[in-house]
Amino acid sequence: MSEEKRNILNTINSPDDLKKVPEDDLIQLCKELREKIIDECSEHPGHFGAGLGVVELTVALHYVFDAPYDNIIWDVGHQAYPHKILTGRRDNFSTNRQYKGLSGFPKRSESKYDAFGTGHSSTSISAALGMAVAAKMNGEEDRQSVAIIGDGAMTGGLAFEGLNNAGINNANLLVILNDNNMAIDPNVGGINEYLLDITTSKTYNKLKDDIWHILGRINKISPGARNFIQKIDNSIKSLMLRQSNLFEALGFRYFGPVDGHDVNHLIKVLRDLKDIKGPKLLHCITVKGKGFKQAEIDQTTWHAPGKFNKETGEIIKESKPNTPPKFQDVFGHTILELAHTNPKIVGITPAMPSGCSLNIMMKEMPDRCFDVGIAEQHAVTFSAGLAAQGYVPFCNIYSSFMQRAYDQVIHDVALQKLNVVFCLDRGGLVGADGATHHGAFDLASFRCIPNMTIASPLNEEELRNMMYTAQLPDQGPFSIRYPRGCGSMIEWRTPFKELTIGKGRCLIEGDDIAIISIGAIGNEALKAIQKTTDRSVAFYDMRFLKPIDEELLHSIFRKFKKIITLEDGTIVGGLGSAVIEFMVDHGYSAKIVRLGIPDHFVEHGSQQQLYHECGYDCESIYQTICSI
Amino acid sequence: MSEEKRNILNTINSPDDLKKVPEDDLIQLCKELREKIIDECSEHPGHFGAGLGVVELTVALHYVFDAPYDNIIWDVGHQAYPHKILTGRRDNFSTNRQYKGLSGFPKRSESKYDAFGTGHSSTSISAALGMAVAAKMNGEEDRQSVAIIGDGAMTGGLAFEGLNNAGINNANLLVILNDNNMAIDPNVGGINEYLLDITTSKTYNKLKDDIWHILGRINKISPGARNFIQKIDNSIKSLMLRQSNLFEALGFRYFGPVDGHDVNHLIKVLRDLKDIKGPKLLHCITVKGKGFKQAEIDQTTWHAPGKFNKETGEIIKESKPNTPPKFQDVFGHTILELAHTNPKIVGITPAMPSGCSLNIMMKEMPDRCFDVGIAEQHAVTFSAGLAAQGYVPFCNIYSSFMQRAYDQVIHDVALQKLNVVFCLDRGGLVGADGATHHGAFDLASFRCIPNMTIASPLNEEELRNMMYTAQLPDQGPFSIRYPRGCGSMIEWRTPFKELTIGKGRCLIEGDDIAIISIGAIGNEALKAIQKTTDRSVAFYDMRFLKPIDEELLHSIFRKFKKIITLEDGTIVGGLGSAVIEFMVDHGYSAKIVRLGIPDHFVEHGSQQQLYHECGYDCESIYQTICSI
Repeated sequence: MSEEKRNILNTINSPDDLKKVPEDDLIQLCKELREKIIDECSEHPGHFGAGLGVVELTVALHYVFDAPYDNIIWDVGHQAYPHKILTGRRDNFSTNRQYKGLSGFPKRSESKYDAFGTGHSSTSISAALGMAVAAKMNGEEDRQSVAIIGDGAMTGGLAFEGLNNAGINNANLLVILNDNNMAIDPNVGGINEYLLDITTSKTYNKLKDDIWHILGRINKISPGARNFIQKIDNSIKSLMLRQSNLFEALGFRYFGPVDGHDVNHLIKVLRDLKDIKGPKLLHCITVKGKGFKQAEIDQTTWHAPGKFNKETGEIIKESKPNTPPKFQDVFGHTILELAHTNPKIVGITPAMPSGCSLNIMMKEMPDRCFDVGIAEQHAVTFSAGLAAQGYVPFCNIYSSFMQRAYDQVIHDVALQKLNVVFCLDRGGLVGADGATHHGAFDLASFRCIPNMTIASPLNEEELRNMMYTAQLPDQGPFSIRYPRGCGSMIEWRTPFKELTIGKGRCLIEGDDIAIISIGAIGNEALKAIQKTTDRSVAFYDMRFLKPIDEELLHSIFRKFKKIITLEDGTIVGGLGSAVIEFMVDHGYSAKIVRLGIPDHFVEHGSQQQLYHECGYDCESIYQTICSI
Repeated sequence: MSEEKRNILNTINSPDDLKKVPEDDLIQLCKELREKIIDECSEHPGHFGAGLGVVELTVALHYVFDAPYDNIIWDVGHQAYPHKILTGRRDNFSTNRQYKGLSGFPKRSESKYDAFGTGHSSTSISAALGMAVAAKMNGEEDRQSVAIIGDGAMTGGLAFEGLNNAGINNANLLVILNDNNMAIDPNVGGINEYLLDITTSKTYNKLKDDIWHILGRINKISPGARNFIQKIDNSIKSLMLRQSNLFEALGFRYFGPVDGHDVNHLIKVLRDLKDIKGPKLLHCITVKGKGFKQAEIDQTTWHAPGKFNKETGEIIKESKPNTPPKFQDVFGHTILELAHTNPKIVGITPAMPSGCSLNIMMKEMPDRCFDVGIAEQHAVTFSAGLAAQGYVPFCNIYSSFMQRAYDQVIHDVALQKLNVVFCLDRGGLVGADGATHHGAFDLASFRCIPNMTIASPLNEEELRNMMYTAQLPDQGPFSIRYPRGCGSMIEWRTPFKELTIGKGRCLIEGDDIAIISIGAIGNEALKAIQKTTDRSVAFYDMRFLKPIDEELLHSIFRKFKKIITLEDGTIVGGLGSAVIEFMVDHGYSAKIVRLGIPDHFVEHGSQQQLYHECGYDCESIYQTICSI
């Protein structure tokens, strides 16, 4: 498309500019906005499909509402790219998700138009309700609070808690259900079936039509029944409005479904809704990836496709031949392998089958895999129920999302010593997704849970052996934590070997300094040690944070007076703390430098950039070795 | 009642015995069971109202289902007393909630009939679904899994996640909604209004009747319309069954409402349901406290009334004159006092207004208090929304329930540095409620959260000053943690004083040993120091776990070589860990004994019994002083 046609978007630096565009030109603007997103995402990888799906909705919202006076909250935030581009971030959008660049999610500190930071799912209704209640208390009757939430996010319990509470509250809340029948993977669950049922008219619309039609005919046959007809009509309307709808049942006024790609109609509808007080829900049907054919067809792949050729729709694979696999794929292939020999193994994921690679097992053993929707709490307690009956659930949840299920891990699994295997994917710094997604707190927050085994593999072989060990009988609560991305072994399909729970190992002997490490970040230390020429550095891979290998620690403290602890997790309460607790409890003394995520929220960037910023990439470890 | 009449219950030591009782005698058995509960609870305080409400339901369930082959799961577990009495624990039920006695909640290790341990709300559907899916995979088609869940617990997001996932799963799951319109306090939320609407027939039943009635009349008026009538009838039935019901919308078959106190009818209904495959929900109307008049009338007070006179219904107050107040009441009166001068203060509680004493403010300022239902996650994110608009929410959540909102605390509050005040009630060992309810993990799990201020008061005055300090402008995320029960000051209405964030204090000077303490458990140490005659023991009240007072710690480590840390929380990762992290980071050395909750789950008993068991009651601290 030539530059001269592409001119409306370039005039818009704020919602005020947008409001000056004539309504007739908005379709053109949407086209430009969509092209901008395609242009940007093809070069600078990001979340692609979600933004394309809400181009019209975003334009309509900013056209009708007055942000930042009105609060617009994008659930999860994958969908916020058009919003960012329209609210003053068009020209630096190419820095999206890059180190020191724009965040891939809404962020209060980045823009006054980002009313509430998101990243994790299902928070928007609660946050918007809080804002709506605040406006009500302030007497700002005209002030609107809008939550835009996907049907996937609607399966999260927090969304339901928010709906349930909003339903009895007369605050000025508009929930827009962005229904595209997808999370990252296809959406699952009763509510999804229900929404499909509404939108495909299988029951709801057909029934509505049928009854009206029949009543019309009765009317003709028997004019004397007219007053009864009137009563029936009122009854059915009331039934439809008050009882027939899940959201109405919860106290919302329900509107829709409407076509989420008809920008002018959306504007009309939103204007009407503005004048209706109290909690209301607009059901909006959209297509994820709208306007980019390949993304519309394969929505899971195009959720976040990486770089692609925008002309051909070809995704540009950056992986070279003979590179180590992703830890995720090692998990996926290994659980399938184990499930072949252990019929009690089942796999559970909260809406991340492709992200965590459980889809590998799912394909072959669909009956033994459970995608429970965006529902981490349920994933854990459901696993506990399975374990109580003798199954061995591998419950795979990203570390940062596992924060959602902290209580269930403690109360439903650990307290009852149930044999649930928690696979904590994306433990440590995750890179471009940034502060909301880093798996920073799992080691520290899990370490204080009694009965919990905490393992973390240095490499693929270790992950396989930890998974093998975890599924042996009577292991109790067992967590295995590994990072986002690739490991270090080309030949990773090693034979299984049982590990002794709570036993670490010495991989490099040394005399001056001991590095005590857990997890794959240890590879940075191994590289740093190779660079070191003037000091004798030992390397210990603890394998288990809990129970910690006390015998090994005794031998280390007897030998070394200089120790570096290393973990890809917060230094408050993690491995470093465990090591010094041991030291003090046993009366040893040593100089200890603890490397890990410092006690502040770390932003986005590549994993290597962030390791460096936090002082535990290879180079920083080398510097620490030199200076300790 | 004389012993000769009271004879059926005494013959029942298992569900098998129960099944031998003729159906005609079950009303008598229910009477005896109810009297047993009244007898026991009047002497041995426990959860009273919930059990009385499910006497008939419990008898019917064990009459129809075959536990432990069939899985019966009692949500929360307050309601499990009749179940315990019928499943072999009649004669030792008087040990309920006492040290080394029966647990007040279902517990797998206590009985094979306790299919799943509960205590926290809303877990039963997920756990039962896990068991039902396990049975399905085992090919045990006849095996039933039953979750009995209150309408209060149904407001928890986890329950919704479970329903949503069960709705698409064809496993053999029966959810019994025990609808008494109460949590501990009256239940609130959209779903509650909805259930009320069904049961009070305001819309649903009246409409059902109306339409049937009208159709009947039309039928008479116009016989030619009969085929249309048939179509309407089918349509409306389908509408009613498929669409008109919240649970049907989620994929459940809905039955009811039925009278939960008609034991014979319940048996009939449950027998019918046994043969219906797939997820189904039975809506059962009960009265909390049924059969004990005072409890039926004032259900909140009689949720757990303590000892009472079973003849007169008089609750036996054990508090003496001139005793210090409960920390809860200090919170309640203080937030009201602060709210009078700071119009931005609002109070939020997830279904615990009387438990946490927010009801004191609620009475006077109903518009500034929010009971959001059993919904800890929402309570936190809703608070974040309010804070984003400049309000200062005091979000009061029991420490152990705050585990449910760990992610929201991190992701929605701390990351955005919002000024939410978390009042962590019941921090530390709570006593009779036991393992599920101890607030053991909050200090450790909150300490690793960046931006979070963590305070814990020694006494009432300190609690007041911490609350005062927390509501001053721009304090960011601020948590105040205090224990269940009474403080130590009679004259507690002290004038407010601003505390310096992160500043501790020395309360007793000394030369040999330093005790570094946080929170009200410090009073045990103060008593221990008074007993000590031969050593000079200093006492430091840190006040803040985070930021920790480094200046004070420097002075302590410069002076002392023997240090005892004391906290009413897990010793893994809490204050003790913070102190030794400081010591190692700054190159000090000292002998440190860390007192706190050991790394295993602690059972129930009085708080003093448990402090003693864990080694940090006054006597144990004294012993530690003598032996360090």
